[in-house]
Amino acid sequence: MSDSQSPRLPRNVRIANVGLDLLADSINRQGRDVVTVDWRIPAAGDEQTIDALERLMGRHAARIDTANAEVFRRLDTASPKLTGVARALDVVPRMTDRTILYPGPALEWSEFCDPLRRSVRATVMSEGWARDRDEAEKVVASGGVTLDSANHHATVLPMATAIGPSASVFLVGFDDYTAYSPINQGPGKTAWFGVDEPEAVEHLVWLGEVAAPILGAAISSAGPIDVFAMATQGLQMGDDLHMRTQATGNLLLRHLFGDLVETSDSHLAEFARFWTANHLFFLNIAMAASKATTTWAEEVPDSSVVIAMARNGTTFGIRVAGAGDDWFIAPAPLVQHAMYHSGYGPETSAPDIGDSAVLELIGLGGPAAAGAPAVAAFVGGTMADARAVTDQMAHISVSRSSRFTIPTLDNVGTPVGIDIRKVVELQITPSVNTGILHRADGIGQVGAGVAVAPMDVFREALLALDSRLQEGR
Amino acid sequence: MSDSQSPRLPRNVRIANVGLDLLADSINRQGRDVVTVDWRIPAAGDEQTIDALERLMGRHAARIDTANAEVFRRLDTASPKLTGVARALDVVPRMTDRTILYPGPALEWSEFCDPLRRSVRATVMSEGWARDRDEAEKVVASGGVTLDSANHHATVLPMATAIGPSASVFLVGFDDYTAYSPINQGPGKTAWFGVDEPEAVEHLVWLGEVAAPILGAAISSAGPIDVFAMATQGLQMGDDLHMRTQATGNLLLRHLFGDLVETSDSHLAEFARFWTANHLFFLNIAMAASKATTTWAEEVPDSSVVIAMARNGTTFGIRVAGAGDDWFIAPAPLVQHAMYHSGYGPETSAPDIGDSAVLELIGLGGPAAAGAPAVAAFVGGTMADARAVTDQMAHISVSRSSRFTIPTLDNVGTPVGIDIRKVVELQITPSVNTGILHRADGIGQVGAGVAVAPMDVFREALLALDSRLQEGR
Repeated sequence: MSDSQSPRLPRNVRIANVGLDLLADSINRQGRDVVTVDWRIPAAGDEQTIDALERLMGRHAARIDTANAEVFRRLDTASPKLTGVARALDVVPRMTDRTILYPGPALEWSEFCDPLRRSVRATVMSEGWARDRDEAEKVVASGGVTLDSANHHATVLPMATAIGPSASVFLVGFDDYTAYSPINQGPGKTAWFGVDEPEAVEHLVWLGEVAAPILGAAISSAGPIDVFAMATQGLQMGDDLHMRTQATGNLLLRHLFGDLVETSDSHLAEFARFWTANHLFFLNIAMAASKATTTWAEEVPDSSVVIAMARNGTTFGIRVAGAGDDWFIAPAPLVQHAMYHSGYGPETSAPDIGDSAVLELIGLGGPAAAGAPAVAAFVGGTMADARAVTDQMAHISVSRSSRFTIPTLDNVGTPVGIDIRKVVELQITPSVNTGILHRADGIGQVGAGVAVAPMDVFREALLALDSRLQEGR
Repeated sequence: MSDSQSPRLPRNVRIANVGLDLLADSINRQGRDVVTVDWRIPAAGDEQTIDALERLMGRHAARIDTANAEVFRRLDTASPKLTGVARALDVVPRMTDRTILYPGPALEWSEFCDPLRRSVRATVMSEGWARDRDEAEKVVASGGVTLDSANHHATVLPMATAIGPSASVFLVGFDDYTAYSPINQGPGKTAWFGVDEPEAVEHLVWLGEVAAPILGAAISSAGPIDVFAMATQGLQMGDDLHMRTQATGNLLLRHLFGDLVETSDSHLAEFARFWTANHLFFLNIAMAASKATTTWAEEVPDSSVVIAMARNGTTFGIRVAGAGDDWFIAPAPLVQHAMYHSGYGPETSAPDIGDSAVLELIGLGGPAAAGAPAVAAFVGGTMADARAVTDQMAHISVSRSSRFTIPTLDNVGTPVGIDIRKVVELQITPSVNTGILHRADGIGQVGAGVAVAPMDVFREALLALDSRLQEGR
């Protein structure tokens, strides 16, 4: 069957194209198949970064890989329990009776974005330190309160949430690691969406006076609740545990139903209506569990894994286990791939905000997008788009979760442990499923979508890690 | 580039094989590709059936297709609401103060399988007509109660559920169509699993005296609940609404939470513990909604669509809209593709039982398997196996649901409207997701799996439909 016209060359040539598509396209036009290798110039060709990458993936690789394996083990196996509700002043480390905590990296008051500024003012009013917005603004501007990043107090706050000393927080932890997050404020005119109207202030007071005692009593009566075991079930029910937490929240409600009733609290019906309307009830609990987990993981030296990722609507910051205590920050990006409420768009949106990106560090949110059909609408429309988000996260992660699995992909684990070496080499930053607030009007949420983290912070962290290892620290 | 060695035949031959795989295998062994057409002898070659099929798919096809389109429209658009809870005697049609209803086609007491016999005895005791099992057996055997098939009373009963006049039933309906199903009895030693111990009898009394007033008050206060709208959400959360209903049940709990609390019932905590433990709380509600829907659909003449499918552990029966009021019955099959509790297997299992297969008629259960990852374990293990169950149902169904969609398949609708012509032609009977009871010991559930309906009943229904159309009825 030899019918070659050119005896010196094989008849069936298979072609592989590496890099630019130009050549491949040309071959395709000639009617030949070509395998395209998705190769790109590492680190976008930046020489300083490439030098650092060569060391971090070369002679320091073994040391880093060992550290990363241990960080991954901690992120993958920590088992935080929800054990109660308490007043922030009584439990949150270094909380004072004049402290207000906010999400994201530390920031000067003058740089606060509009929704976070409003949330802080609402919090000041809810504490009784001011009667109206103007007074609240003055109290803060005059240094009458100590503003600090919640992350430095073992606390995580979604969207524009702020908390004062009398806020009630969930206690979530294991061994020596406990983290805190307040009761989710729910939909509508609420401070965490950047609303500072009287209604939002009253709601903050209500959360502390009505919701907290009921929840605290029910949780104490039920006993410790394994947060990630419940999240694991929620993933099987279409939650990504970030943009969508309602299946998991419903599981918690069913779990606590008897204990809630047994509180015999006279405000229980009011509280029940609040819970029924709150699709993100579980969000803050999952965030606190994630924070307790990353706090354990960050004790491992030499790791290139991200152990903090947070935004305040002005800056976006990360911390990396092996790169010291510093935050690496850049301007907060606008949320991409977004769906907006009617009448709103990028031009009315505040930049990305909140501590909820801590979820993406342990395999929830973006990494779990492929398992959350209802989230798919926000990331492009189809399940294939959602799977692409999960696949991108897999490219930059250490490994896959042994507990958080994606039912639609025959229960493959979600990607866990963002390795900044892979982020910088492949120029792929993490995707964060998130909500979007109005940039200026104090009208609350205007959309939701996927935020793409800025590359600069990963590059800076990479250079810092490289320096430390060079110096033998 | 012409290099053919045989100018009279094309060089690239593509081969299609129709029917037996023998030829295709042989060609494959010779290193050539072959497209295999999955063709089989229609109706397994039975001549009488083929003659009937030729008429039903030939000269009567237009008439039947028109009828089926209307049946499909009704199955696909009926919107039953859950409106309350009432005593069976007060609402169920033709219920008397000595009637006991059971699932499946009508059956003589002497032919009742063991679990259903036990459930009837427990019901007799719960009504106060007998003090123990022996007395209950005598009461029934002596004709002291009127036994009847629940299906003839607009009522559907899952597994081995039986109800007497004092049982409490959900009211689910729309326009002139209302159907009934009792409160699901929950897990453990319960009569619907074929347990007739005192504990099971007390539980039946408790359901009527404690659970029913609470549920009735809460549902009345909440207002009509759109059952299929809730089911639609549940499908997005991994329920098939038959073997798994817990996401939908949790949605109902969250919806009713405030109204339940406002009943201020002194037994509410007890009731709450019951609901928390009951993963199949929503099953009976979905069944009643399906029954109301099929009752509307069955009024369409000339249709070849199945509008009743039920089992009593002894016989399996169907009714077809165009084939008159008769049930077509055959011995109930054992459940195939089953997973058993440790220590049990086919040899300890009662045959397929319960009215829950009404769900499969409107696109829930088996047709929705592809969207229920947790159900996949019972149908073969992987999501591909679950998809195969949905695909099989699509082969024998009129069309796809416009409301029940499969999130993992980019929201394609579940197959709706089982056409007996397709069933008989392709020799594929419906798959029913279901539980399995012990055959003799009264110990309750021993497994779960997929029941495959017996072919005979579809063939008989087909011949009956053919006769009626031949006779011009």
